[in-house]
Amino acid sequence: MPVERKDFRDAMAQLPAAVNVITTDGAGGKGGFTASAVCSVTDSPATLLVCMNRTVSSAEAFRANGVLCVNTLSAAQEEVSNVFAGMTGVDGPARFETGSWGRLVTGAPVLEGALVACDARITDILEKGTHLVLFAEVEAVRLGAGEAAALLYFRRGYCPLSRAA
Amino acid sequence: MPVERKDFRDAMAQLPAAVNVITTDGAGGKGGFTASAVCSVTDSPATLLVCMNRTVSSAEAFRANGVLCVNTLSAAQEEVSNVFAGMTGVDGPARFETGSWGRLVTGAPVLEGALVACDARITDILEKGTHLVLFAEVEAVRLGAGEAAALLYFRRGYCPLSRAA
Repeated sequence: MPVERKDFRDAMAQLPAAVNVITTDGAGGKGGFTASAVCSVTDSPATLLVCMNRTVSSAEAFRANGVLCVNTLSAAQEEVSNVFAGMTGVDGPARFETGSWGRLVTGAPVLEGALVACDARITDILEKGTHLVLFAEVEAVRLGAGEAAALLYFRRGYCPLSRAA
Repeated sequence: MPVERKDFRDAMAQLPAAVNVITTDGAGGKGGFTASAVCSVTDSPATLLVCMNRTVSSAEAFRANGVLCVNTLSAAQEEVSNVFAGMTGVDGPARFETGSWGRLVTGAPVLEGALVACDARITDILEKGTHLVLFAEVEAVRLGAGEAAALLYFRRGYCPLSRAA
């Protein structure tokens, strides 16, 4: 029998994760959400995955557009995280008023100042309980300029992560 | 077209991740490997996923046993990470001579001093290029005692992560 929801959440609070904003744009509209459940799958072909709650407001836009960009936040981008996590009450394309945004190849919004942006095409969507697992092939990458600290989520709060020199 | 392997790896180096040792035991034998590609999928039912290279020595043991435990390492457990990443040349059950190990419900080895251990039953295995994605339902959790720093992997090296009070 699986553990209770509360026990699982308490366990996951002990697993630190990078904070990312996942974006999309296209015929299905522009949208985005904050996610920590992102990981590398394979480098041949270059593939990552993102777990998305079915109830996020932009879920249909991701399905319709078939593209996404994973923007990995720097420690200075807590505000962008809060907006795309829905904590400020702003929804839909208005979320993009926070932050500066560009594009690479798929048209999904790319955040200026992110540690890295992976612009990708969704190849497969798996349904798992409350969530969808989006598999996506990375078609373009933009690396941040410097060695900025990363924004992590750990024990139910933000922490900066610097790489010791 | 997906990006080249090197570009993808350079991008993933900018995505910090917790370091975990994934273990199994049962009729297929005892084994384990170090993984950063672990994430929460859904809390109903409590499910996580682990991406495993097909070539890890214990891959067949995971398939045969159908169980795994995700042990999230503390900053003090770099040595355990190195052993299970194969960096010390030790393979197979001899890896468990490093660290202190117990069990919860599935029989997969549980690491003393980990931040959290999630003992789980594999429900689904997906093939993606060089890797297998293992989905597993969490049947038992053991939380660490204190507020130890976590062990992160970021920009191709280990970093400790402490939660500011």
